[in-house]
Amino acid sequence: MRVCFRSQVDPQFLDEYRQRHAEVWPQMLTALEAAGWENYTLHLGDDGLLIGIVDCDDLDEIRARMALTEVNARWQTEMAALFPASETAPDNGFMVMEEVFNLDQQLAEAGPTSEGQMK
Amino acid sequence: MRVCFRSQVDPQFLDEYRQRHAEVWPQMLTALEAAGWENYTLHLGDDGLLIGIVDCDDLDEIRARMALTEVNARWQTEMAALFPASETAPDNGFMVMEEVFNLDQQLAEAGPTSEGQMK
Repeated sequence: MRVCFRSQVDPQFLDEYRQRHAEVWPQMLTALEAAGWENYTLHLGDDGLLIGIVDCDDLDEIRARMALTEVNARWQTEMAALFPASETAPDNGFMVMEEVFNLDQQLAEAGPTSEGQMK
Repeated sequence: MRVCFRSQVDPQFLDEYRQRHAEVWPQMLTALEAAGWENYTLHLGDDGLLIGIVDCDDLDEIRARMALTEVNARWQTEMAALFPASETAPDNGFMVMEEVFNLDQQLAEAGPTSEGQMK
């Protein structure tokens, strides 16, 4: 299942955010993989809008697994400076977005009759 | 290749947007599939932020293929009322977001040495 979440990077620090994420620590990469972060990408808007996309059954579960790692604590502490001031770590500010359309699901529900309507 | 794009739904019409997209016309579904929209989902925020995610090699190409269909013109005309007033059709307001992190790509670049650093 694909999960999409949003957050907000401080617009002052977009370049630094890009640089840091172009070269994530190898230990952080393998920790994410081991924790079940499949097909994980991050996307940044010019206004600091940050979108994360990951394939998983349960985002809370894979976040909890990362929270157990020492490397994640170190990484999030360094990233915190790039997010607007708040009391929470950056990865606690991830808000899941509601899926309002899924093409494959609706195609499956429409069934084979939909093909006839195409013609 | 995964592409993530953003747009903005008029916050007054979030419920209508949800309802319309919960039951997209079968003809629109099959047109999207035929035009190459693979694994396509839409995600909506409470403020009207709209995120689209699709697997494709070239977003412009699959948009151009949809633009050739009669059903897309009808669909976008009906959807236009749910987007803030503008001179463009809703699907012309899609802005691609920059991918700033790709876990699988960085794992591949880090190579097998990264596994050793995990331990």
